[in-house]
Amino acid sequence: MQHEASSFFGTEPGHFTLAWPGEALFGPGCAERVTGWAVSRGLRRPLLVSDPGLVASGLASRVLDGLRAAGMVPVLYDGVAANPTIDNVTQAHARWGEAECDGVVAFGGGSVIDVSKVLVARLCSDAPLADLLREGDARIVRAAPPFAALPTTAGTGSESTTAALIKDAEGRKHVLRSRRCRPQWVALDPLLTMSTPPGVTASTGFDVVMHALGAATNRAANPVGDALALAALARSFGSLPAVLARPDDLDARADMMLSSYLAGVAISLRGVDGIHGLCTPLEALVSAPHGHVLAVTCEPLMRFNLATMSARYAQVAAACGLDGGTAAGEAAMAEALIERVCALRDLAGLPRSLAQLGVTRDALAPIYDVAQANASVQLNGRPMTREDIVALYDAMV
Amino acid sequence: MQHEASSFFGTEPGHFTLAWPGEALFGPGCAERVTGWAVSRGLRRPLLVSDPGLVASGLASRVLDGLRAAGMVPVLYDGVAANPTIDNVTQAHARWGEAECDGVVAFGGGSVIDVSKVLVARLCSDAPLADLLREGDARIVRAAPPFAALPTTAGTGSESTTAALIKDAEGRKHVLRSRRCRPQWVALDPLLTMSTPPGVTASTGFDVVMHALGAATNRAANPVGDALALAALARSFGSLPAVLARPDDLDARADMMLSSYLAGVAISLRGVDGIHGLCTPLEALVSAPHGHVLAVTCEPLMRFNLATMSARYAQVAAACGLDGGTAAGEAAMAEALIERVCALRDLAGLPRSLAQLGVTRDALAPIYDVAQANASVQLNGRPMTREDIVALYDAMV
Repeated sequence: MQHEASSFFGTEPGHFTLAWPGEALFGPGCAERVTGWAVSRGLRRPLLVSDPGLVASGLASRVLDGLRAAGMVPVLYDGVAANPTIDNVTQAHARWGEAECDGVVAFGGGSVIDVSKVLVARLCSDAPLADLLREGDARIVRAAPPFAALPTTAGTGSESTTAALIKDAEGRKHVLRSRRCRPQWVALDPLLTMSTPPGVTASTGFDVVMHALGAATNRAANPVGDALALAALARSFGSLPAVLARPDDLDARADMMLSSYLAGVAISLRGVDGIHGLCTPLEALVSAPHGHVLAVTCEPLMRFNLATMSARYAQVAAACGLDGGTAAGEAAMAEALIERVCALRDLAGLPRSLAQLGVTRDALAPIYDVAQANASVQLNGRPMTREDIVALYDAMV
Repeated sequence: MQHEASSFFGTEPGHFTLAWPGEALFGPGCAERVTGWAVSRGLRRPLLVSDPGLVASGLASRVLDGLRAAGMVPVLYDGVAANPTIDNVTQAHARWGEAECDGVVAFGGGSVIDVSKVLVARLCSDAPLADLLREGDARIVRAAPPFAALPTTAGTGSESTTAALIKDAEGRKHVLRSRRCRPQWVALDPLLTMSTPPGVTASTGFDVVMHALGAATNRAANPVGDALALAALARSFGSLPAVLARPDDLDARADMMLSSYLAGVAISLRGVDGIHGLCTPLEALVSAPHGHVLAVTCEPLMRFNLATMSARYAQVAAACGLDGGTAAGEAAMAEALIERVCALRDLAGLPRSLAQLGVTRDALAPIYDVAQANASVQLNGRPMTREDIVALYDAMV
C-alpha cells in the first residue's frame, strides 16, 4: 500500500503529475444542462444511478423527464445504499446490461457517484472486481462510456476525485483509484443541495475541511494540489459555518459546493493524510457517517503532527487568514489552525470520541495493522510508527 | 467580439465553467516519456512540429531518436516562424497529409505549440480556416488526433491555454479559441528551458506575469481561475528574478515553468485584461517579441485601472506577500503591486515606450477601433471607452 500511495500521488520533490478531472459547469440551475450533454454525446438509453431518497423527493424524476423530453429512454437504478456496497455495483451493472444502456448519469451524493465510478470501471475492464479495486487504472482496458455526475451534496468531492469507496459483503471498505473512470462532465448546481438535511450538511461539510487540510499538509510533492487545497480550506472555513447557520442561503450553499469540488481536485492531485488514514479502518467497525469518524480522528492527529509540522500548520493558518493574536509566532498560528478545525467540528455537532461512536478500546486491536498499511497514513506529514498509531487510537477512546 | 469574450469566459457572478487542460507531467527529464505516451496511443507516424533553432541545437533529434527507437517513423516539420503564420499551418498540414501521420508532437515554444493547435483544429474541421479561427470549437466536428506538447520556453503557457495566435499574410493576428484542440498530454521538463537565451527568458517570463496579473484582476467570474492566477503571480514574482539572475539554476527554471503553466490554466479559465487587449493591435504594427509590447502597455493600464481597482490590486499584492510598508493601507498596497511589476519589467531589460519599439503617434490611429473591439479590452477590470484607449496609447508614446 505504501508503494501504491507514493507512486499514485508522488512524494519526490519537483516531480508530479497534473491529471485534471472532467469539465465542470458551476451555477444555480446548471443541472438542467445534463440533457444537452446527453444529446451532444448521442445517448439513447442513459442509466441514471441514484438512491431511494432522491427518487422519493421527486428530484430524480425531473432529471428523467428532461432526458425523456429530448427523446431518450433513460433507465433508473435507484438502489444505492448510504454506505454503498459491491452489490450495488453488481445490480447497476445488471440493469445496464438488461437495458442496453449507453451512458451513465450519477445523480446523488458521494455514495451514488462512487457506485457509478466503480460501475464505469467494471464496464472498462474484464478483470475480476477484486483486482480492479486493488489495481485501478492498470486494469482499465477500454475507453469509458459517456459519464456525467450531478452531485446533490457538498462534501465528498467524488465528482472530482480519483477515489471511490465501496464495502464488500464483510463490511470491509475498498478504494478504487482511477483517473480514467471519473465523470467526464459535472454540473455543480447549488440548488440541488438546498434540501440537504442539516445532519448531512454538517457531516459532509466537515469532510471537505478534512480533505483540504489533509491535501495541504501531507507529504505529497504536488504544488498545484497544494494551492487548490489552500483555496478550498480558506473557502470552507467561511462557507461551512454559513451553511450551518443559514441552510437556505444559496450563496453559502454555492460556496460550500465549490469548496467541496476544489478539495476533491486537491486530493485527486495530492491525496489526504493520517486523519483519513486512521478513519478508514474505523469505518469497518462502525456505520457512522464518514464525517463523524473524521471528527473523532482529527484532533489527536493534528496534535500529533504539531511536533514536526508546526511551521506548515502556521503557513496554512496564515494562508487562510486566521488570526493567531498580536504578532503571532509560529506556535500561536499553528494552534489557531487546530482551534479553528475543532471549533468547526463542535459547531457542526459532530462527535469527539470513539465512545460516542460506540467503539470500545477492546474493538481496536484488529485495526492497528490495517491502519499502518493505509495509504493515507503513509502520506501523513509526520511519519507514524505502529506505536504512534496505537497511542493515537487510544487517545480517541 | 465583446459578446464572444464574455460568453467564452463568463462574467455573470456565480456562473462559470471549469474546462481543464490535458494531463501534464512535471519534472526534470520527464520529456523523455513522450515516447511512452506515443506508444500508449498506438502511434506509428507522429508529426513532430518544431522550429529551425531547435533542430540546429540537436534537441529535436533526441525526440525523433526516442520515437524511432520505439519503432515509430516520425515525420518532422521544422518551419515554424518566431511569429507564426497561417502558411506554417498550411505547410504542416501538407506534411501531415503526405506522410499519413497519426498524431502531433509539438516541440518548442509558444509559436510551435500555437501552430500545432491550429493544425489540430484544421484536422478536426472542414470549415474554411478563417471561419475556424473566428468561431473555434463551434466549428470542430471531429475528435482530435493524439496531441502532445513539450514546451521549451517558460512563458506563453500555450500548452495549457485555449488560445493560439497566428498571423495572416497581411500581418494581422488571429486568435483561435478552442478547448478541444489543446494538447492532451504535456511534459513540463525544465531541462528543456535551460538553454533558453536570456532575451527570450526575459520576454516570455514577463508574459507569465502579465497573464497571471490579467487573470487575477479582470471581470471574469471564475474563482478557480482566480486562485490559480494568484498562485502563478506569487510564484513568478519570485522565479522571474531568479532565472534572470541565474540562468543555470534548475530549481528556478522549474519554478518559472510551473508559473507559466499555471498562468496558462488561469487565462484558459478567465482570459486576460486590457494590458493584453492593447498589446494585440500594436503587434500588427511591430514585430517585437510579445513580452516587449506588454512591457510598454502594462504600466499605463495598471495606473488607469487604479481608479476603480485599487482594492483588488491591494488584495492581489497581499496574496503575493508584497510589503506596502508599516500598516500599509489599500493605496500603498496597490502601489506596491504596480511597483513590483514595473521593477520586473526593468530588471528584465524590457522597453517602456512605443518609441523604443519604433512606433510613432502617427501610426496609432488605425488601431483605436481595433483595440476597442478587442475581447481582452472588454474583460478589463475598469471599463474602457474609446477616449480612454486613445489617451492610454498616447501615454505610451
